[in-house]
Amino acid sequence: MTRKIDIFDTTLRDGEQSPGASMNTEEKLVITRELLRMNVDVIEAGFPISSPGDFESVRKISQLVGYDAVVCALTRAIEKDILCAADALKFAKRPRIHTGIGVSESHLRDKLRITPDECVKRAVECVQCAKRYVDDVQFYAEDAGRSDYDFLVRVIQAVVDAGATVVNIPDTTGYSLPEEFGRRIKYLVDNVRGIEDVTIAVHCHNDLGMATALALAGVANGARQIECTINGLGERAGNTAMEEVVMAIKMHGEELDAHTEVNTREFVKASRLVSSITGMNVQANKSIVGANAFAHSSGIHQDGVLKKRDTYEIIDPADVGAGSSQIVLTARSGHAALKHRLEELGYEFEPQKLDEIYEAFLNLADKKKEVYDEDLESLVNERSREADALYSLESIQISCGFPLKPTATLTVRGPEGDPITVCDWGTGPVDAVYKAVDQVIGCQNDLLEYSVQSVTRGIDALGEVTVRVKAANGDIYTGRGADGDIIVSSTKAYLNALNRLLSDKR
Amino acid sequence: MTRKIDIFDTTLRDGEQSPGASMNTEEKLVITRELLRMNVDVIEAGFPISSPGDFESVRKISQLVGYDAVVCALTRAIEKDILCAADALKFAKRPRIHTGIGVSESHLRDKLRITPDECVKRAVECVQCAKRYVDDVQFYAEDAGRSDYDFLVRVIQAVVDAGATVVNIPDTTGYSLPEEFGRRIKYLVDNVRGIEDVTIAVHCHNDLGMATALALAGVANGARQIECTINGLGERAGNTAMEEVVMAIKMHGEELDAHTEVNTREFVKASRLVSSITGMNVQANKSIVGANAFAHSSGIHQDGVLKKRDTYEIIDPADVGAGSSQIVLTARSGHAALKHRLEELGYEFEPQKLDEIYEAFLNLADKKKEVYDEDLESLVNERSREADALYSLESIQISCGFPLKPTATLTVRGPEGDPITVCDWGTGPVDAVYKAVDQVIGCQNDLLEYSVQSVTRGIDALGEVTVRVKAANGDIYTGRGADGDIIVSSTKAYLNALNRLLSDKR
Repeated sequence: MTRKIDIFDTTLRDGEQSPGASMNTEEKLVITRELLRMNVDVIEAGFPISSPGDFESVRKISQLVGYDAVVCALTRAIEKDILCAADALKFAKRPRIHTGIGVSESHLRDKLRITPDECVKRAVECVQCAKRYVDDVQFYAEDAGRSDYDFLVRVIQAVVDAGATVVNIPDTTGYSLPEEFGRRIKYLVDNVRGIEDVTIAVHCHNDLGMATALALAGVANGARQIECTINGLGERAGNTAMEEVVMAIKMHGEELDAHTEVNTREFVKASRLVSSITGMNVQANKSIVGANAFAHSSGIHQDGVLKKRDTYEIIDPADVGAGSSQIVLTARSGHAALKHRLEELGYEFEPQKLDEIYEAFLNLADKKKEVYDEDLESLVNERSREADALYSLESIQISCGFPLKPTATLTVRGPEGDPITVCDWGTGPVDAVYKAVDQVIGCQNDLLEYSVQSVTRGIDALGEVTVRVKAANGDIYTGRGADGDIIVSSTKAYLNALNRLLSDKR
Repeated sequence: MTRKIDIFDTTLRDGEQSPGASMNTEEKLVITRELLRMNVDVIEAGFPISSPGDFESVRKISQLVGYDAVVCALTRAIEKDILCAADALKFAKRPRIHTGIGVSESHLRDKLRITPDECVKRAVECVQCAKRYVDDVQFYAEDAGRSDYDFLVRVIQAVVDAGATVVNIPDTTGYSLPEEFGRRIKYLVDNVRGIEDVTIAVHCHNDLGMATALALAGVANGARQIECTINGLGERAGNTAMEEVVMAIKMHGEELDAHTEVNTREFVKASRLVSSITGMNVQANKSIVGANAFAHSSGIHQDGVLKKRDTYEIIDPADVGAGSSQIVLTARSGHAALKHRLEELGYEFEPQKLDEIYEAFLNLADKKKEVYDEDLESLVNERSREADALYSLESIQISCGFPLKPTATLTVRGPEGDPITVCDWGTGPVDAVYKAVDQVIGCQNDLLEYSVQSVTRGIDALGEVTVRVKAANGDIYTGRGADGDIIVSSTKAYLNALNRLLSDKR
């Protein structure tokens, strides 16, 4: 039997740190349900001290998960962070606190401004502090990938002695070469007393495009936990992608003496869900879950694949849930069918809310013959966005084309309740609408990005638009909107971003 | 001095094999000019026997490149392929023929249906045949990543003896682990006589997300040429991304005993150019060239980066041309300024065509205050698409919004010259327009994908839309359209795809 490798998902923590990918608690719960279906071992739910929203998410995720996975919360090596994390994890059946400190020369000198001795002292203190609240304490040695080998051994030895159950060796800057990173893990295995009783974890970044190879090099040299995210989401170029590292272990289990217990058939679905919720699109040539991952276009390859699949393909697309047949709902689908499908997608609702969603579903099914999972997700997410908006869209009327001047007439209901109607024109219809919205709301912001989720099944699908705006204070807000009409989606997305910005301001 | 590693770009060959990424000759020449600015060593220009268009592209690229790079053309181990490649390379100053055959058990048994002895015989024959036309002959051992070590040595020994100057060891299915792939290269170095006088090349695929790590493992073990593409474009999950592998070598040159002569400051521009021409978007968390590659969102990281950049960032964004200041054109920019900027972007035009483009530029600059490189690229590409269209857009008039029924009235001029006007309605305005187009053209097709290029600088930018349609015979056609009005872009993109489909049919 090969070694069991724990899969530690940090989509909800490091993944959410992707600029503009922030999620609310409801969205995080939807992803948590998917993570449970995928059977991951550990869910890093958030960084509780960072905001009341993050605290609340960790609390709710702890309640949802129960015994099905370890729930982990991040802290700095600071007592109030740890107290806050312990509080957020109160309802978790299998809580873990993830605390730590920078260990590279660059972090000690330029960021923390402490001596090596102080670093070791603080590392030990944070583990001891966390141990007062939970048994399962994971220590991270930030920027370990660039740290001195012997100083890293000293820090890890100290935290292992202090009772850490997991030690996480991150390549924080995505700087390492796989071989070198593997050597580093091996050096810990060979030089830290009692390391065989704790789990070594690896947390790698993709700045040089090698996050998956780095994680595997760690596993080959003794690591037993991999930190990763769906779609490789995360700071900068992101983290190790779960779908890549798990499939690589599946293909090379014997050589690596490793296996995971993740349900790979959920990969494509999970990828789409995370992409839809965060608005972070996945490129067509992304490994495992990209639209082209299993598509052959050259004649030579097609010929080979038709003769025998494995001449050019190493993974059966069905193993990752690609191209599998879907349940399609129509206007004749009943209340129970909708409820069942929504539950399979990770959504659970009170009966009254479900009735409202069923109404919206019937409206959509009237216009579209077939309602796919993507449509349902858009529909549900759109409704949750509309719920607590300061400004809501009453009506919008657009005329555009060629050769015409794009013009928009917009009616918005504001916090005072009175509908306000304005019109404006622009380069295109979206520009015209955004100018009209600015007339009503007049909230200073820079539009950083406007993107439309690709439609891969029928042009009559619900179009999802994501916008990112930067407020005057530098904070970035994401807004999303879904509608059959791409201009209406665009309007809703912009309103959604501004509503979030304004409610933060209050 | 470290070893010089040759960078062999195959964006125009393997990259173009990405489903839907096909390019015409003019587009390939634009990318070639960018590759020359990047100072790559070898440009794989195409696979001449595969189509008259590919033949023509290789011929024109050979003329353009001159002595500035090696121009390479792909063939199978078939005499007529090699004759055709030699003919296409006639004008190249530094021609290379790239020929080869499958060497894995799977390829021999299931695809080629030949014995190992026959395989060696054909390998030698194809190299000998190519040597009659060019001195520089590169041999590829297809699926080498899964081949028997000793059989691979036998084939490579035979082609080296036959005069191959470069031997390419591809991991065709993207199956290998880096360490194992490195061992394979080392085995060749240790066991093939005379290998020191030829260049070992590696060509890796990204199916498990490790194409970059695989290529580096090859280099660490003796390879001196890396095959790669811009943005990692290519079959399925793509190839090694040039920007990743070159930056990794730059960061770890000493450990790898390697350097390249590529101009890394062109990376972001090249990425955008290839993405705009192929319609293959790059995800935000793509290494080096993604929109978030250098973006920090967490407070901890921002704090660190402000204190000192290298606490969290290993690459200076300016080194890859990210965030560098751009020349912005306005309505006051003259003819010469436009010409100069277009040349810097890789476009060269006859004076008359340039006059037309200047007209279009002034029209755009009237609507938009500032015209960016992205806008210029969209404008130029749009004009080249319109040039030889069977059906062209005369006018379009759209009304849509909420609560309204999206309606489109469309006038198209067909091959007979008479304008045809139709109207239709749909779920959204794009659906309405596409139904109207179908009324006029009536060409059976499935819409596989509809995507909008993200806008990252002002909502008044030209919106670029890409659609992929599948014809009744299974062929996939890409269409693109650019306009300030996203509905007009969508219409142009669909017309462009159908025009391509219909002109192939003729």
